[in-house]
Amino acid sequence: MTCPLCDTQGGAVLWRNDFCRIVLADEPDHPGFLRVILNAHVKEMTDLSPAEQAALMQVVFAAEAALVEVMQPDKVNLASLGNVVPHLHWHVIPRFADDPHFPNPVWGAKLRESPHAAPPDLDTQLAAALHSQGAGRGSKDA
Amino acid sequence: MTCPLCDTQGGAVLWRNDFCRIVLADEPDHPGFLRVILNAHVKEMTDLSPAEQAALMQVVFAAEAALVEVMQPDKVNLASLGNVVPHLHWHVIPRFADDPHFPNPVWGAKLRESPHAAPPDLDTQLAAALHSQGAGRGSKDA
Repeated sequence: MTCPLCDTQGGAVLWRNDFCRIVLADEPDHPGFLRVILNAHVKEMTDLSPAEQAALMQVVFAAEAALVEVMQPDKVNLASLGNVVPHLHWHVIPRFADDPHFPNPVWGAKLRESPHAAPPDLDTQLAAALHSQGAGRGSKDA
Repeated sequence: MTCPLCDTQGGAVLWRNDFCRIVLADEPDHPGFLRVILNAHVKEMTDLSPAEQAALMQVVFAAEAALVEVMQPDKVNLASLGNVVPHLHWHVIPRFADDPHFPNPVWGAKLRESPHAAPPDLDTQLAAALHSQGAGRGSKDA
């Protein structure tokens, strides 16, 4: 069985190490939508060891911190769903009061057409923010 | 400004300690839908200290483990959104291939009417599973 997160990076890679990667998702309604993707094909958080769980969440929280630093969202949404692609990945989504779905989840009813304004070099700014804080403690490379 | 998660428990409490609580949500489409609710009114995970982040996630993963033990779901969904109620709470949702929204998120389009079958004493079974594993390491009381 093929898995799109084993076969591809799943987006534009902004940061990675041996354990996981952070990609900028292709989600035009939500500029800055990040995904933290485990490199290995694992289904549930409880399939990881406690140390691995902690390591992955540190990267998720580093992604949230980078979004807060660069975009000052009104809220950050975090989610690990995986119903369609059961390969651990965390959605880390900057939410704004004027974004297309707010206050609904991004999977809920769309209420507006235009995305929240974002700078043209958003990817560069987010990558810099992720690297400056090492995406959590144990960053290795990029 | 009032907050429903400061003013009420937010559901039937299955487990709690001084830091957070686990409630069975009133979600008829999704029996076993748990919420892990921080007792304090805090907005974002990155507003917590690293130790507090880790403590809350341990309880979230204990809730997932209890659902896996009792219900054997096809997938577990985890999400911290808070767009409407910006008081940290984690949705921990057992998902089944025959549930009303699968494979959509529970906030997406509904595809079927009937919930996945669940035992009448589901709350008791989940509470027992949460207590037997102490809902993570640092359980105190219940």
